[in-house]
Amino acid sequence: MIERIAILGTGLLGTSVGLALRAGGYKGSITGWNRTPEQGKIALSMGAVGELAPDPLEAARTSQVVLLAVPIYATLDLMEQLSGVLSPDHLVTDVGSTKAQITAAAGRLFNAPERAGFLPGHPMAGKERGGAAIADATLFGGAVWIFTDDPAWIRSPRSEELAKDWRELVVSMGSRTIELDSARHDALVAWVSHLPQFTATALSALLEEEVGSAPELKDVGGRALREMTRLGASPWSMWRDIALTNTEAVEKALFALEQRLAYIRENLRTPELRDEFERANRFRRD
Amino acid sequence: MIERIAILGTGLLGTSVGLALRAGGYKGSITGWNRTPEQGKIALSMGAVGELAPDPLEAARTSQVVLLAVPIYATLDLMEQLSGVLSPDHLVTDVGSTKAQITAAAGRLFNAPERAGFLPGHPMAGKERGGAAIADATLFGGAVWIFTDDPAWIRSPRSEELAKDWRELVVSMGSRTIELDSARHDALVAWVSHLPQFTATALSALLEEEVGSAPELKDVGGRALREMTRLGASPWSMWRDIALTNTEAVEKALFALEQRLAYIRENLRTPELRDEFERANRFRRD
Repeated sequence: MIERIAILGTGLLGTSVGLALRAGGYKGSITGWNRTPEQGKIALSMGAVGELAPDPLEAARTSQVVLLAVPIYATLDLMEQLSGVLSPDHLVTDVGSTKAQITAAAGRLFNAPERAGFLPGHPMAGKERGGAAIADATLFGGAVWIFTDDPAWIRSPRSEELAKDWRELVVSMGSRTIELDSARHDALVAWVSHLPQFTATALSALLEEEVGSAPELKDVGGRALREMTRLGASPWSMWRDIALTNTEAVEKALFALEQRLAYIRENLRTPELRDEFERANRFRRD
Repeated sequence: MIERIAILGTGLLGTSVGLALRAGGYKGSITGWNRTPEQGKIALSMGAVGELAPDPLEAARTSQVVLLAVPIYATLDLMEQLSGVLSPDHLVTDVGSTKAQITAAAGRLFNAPERAGFLPGHPMAGKERGGAAIADATLFGGAVWIFTDDPAWIRSPRSEELAKDWRELVVSMGSRTIELDSARHDALVAWVSHLPQFTATALSALLEEEVGSAPELKDVGGRALREMTRLGASPWSMWRDIALTNTEAVEKALFALEQRLAYIRENLRTPELRDEFERANRFRRD
């Protein structure tokens, strides 16, 4: 049974996990660490963590389960460092939005009988802005929490048991767990998560240039505009690593959307427009 | 004071206007007409109209204010017919989503001292689907209702008075009225309403082809996906006339978004991506 958790990175996701663990009835200790101390103090004041650690490796070493809730390259860096200090009695897991590189590193650095275990995870939940201050105990309620576990891995019995218990804690936070191959995960999220984000960014940046200073903008924009540009508020810092670790799949998706918009543009006056609307209708009906 | 209103077209907007007029305290009569009788019967059963007329011209002739709540080309057709049967004691108004052609027709067919008045209107409210059954008395609450009135028009005193009273009824439905030049209106809605719609249609149609049959789709898609594709449910029948009456402006907006997406695609690994995110952030901050 898990009694000591370290959350490395107390931004929106890490802090929300702390709050959700408590809301789900978890009674053990939660130690927090954040690169910038301010976010850690906010997480502490919200009760998401019970104490703050000055050093991430020390916090990890004295815990059973270590949750990495930092950007993807920071996750990969911490994985390198942690693999040298943790034992088969530890389990590390994460919340990174792309999984191919992290899962490959997990196989290389963890997940052998004499090493700590690593369970790659990705909760399909978030907000368009980050930060501990907007953390929310209900963020994972009703969400799917994906694991890209590799069935070929042979973990130590202790870390395998911790992985099983962590899945139960994820369910206690209100999420439904599913399993996906890491390559399939990255291909799929390029379409259903990354493409929508980059589309909202492109649309918002375009509108900023074209009508951002129009005095009538606030009057004329309705729900459709607000909704289609909400993700435009997402900061680059949250998406840089995603762009860098899923580049080919995102390029392919963006190029396909460019062609699709051109097709609509060339067919505004033809019956092809109806077919395109019907395809779109079908996507929403299914 | 307005005592007799005819609503020609009892779909989502027409029926919602009837309900909103009643909710706002309007005590006069409301006569409804719809091309297909079923929608009229639903509007009647909901109390949005007090009676149904078999003929739109007769319903208009016996009313003071005639609201056209049909697609744009149907609006233009009815304008031609109504201009022959109405007198300077009538006011016609509409809810069409593009205003250049309707406003030009209003100047040609109405808005002279010996003719009926016409006040071109466009409530910035709607849903991604149509139909009387989902009409809503609160649809216009907090929304902006645009008028593209032409200050050069000289209406009969009676129709001018009815136009003033109609603006007050619009306020009673919870909307804020603003004035725009019709060409400016069409240029602006191409960016903030039509582009978001066609983008959602393109994205939904693309996803239908690429991942529509993926078994994991329902698991992996989150709020971002739902939000960015909600408008994909909009039917072609609601958008065909918009595509045909604001073609050049929509073509320009679509082409600009294609270029923007290509720019992001070519810069996923460069610092330009940060600048684009910051432009997008600015649009949401303003």
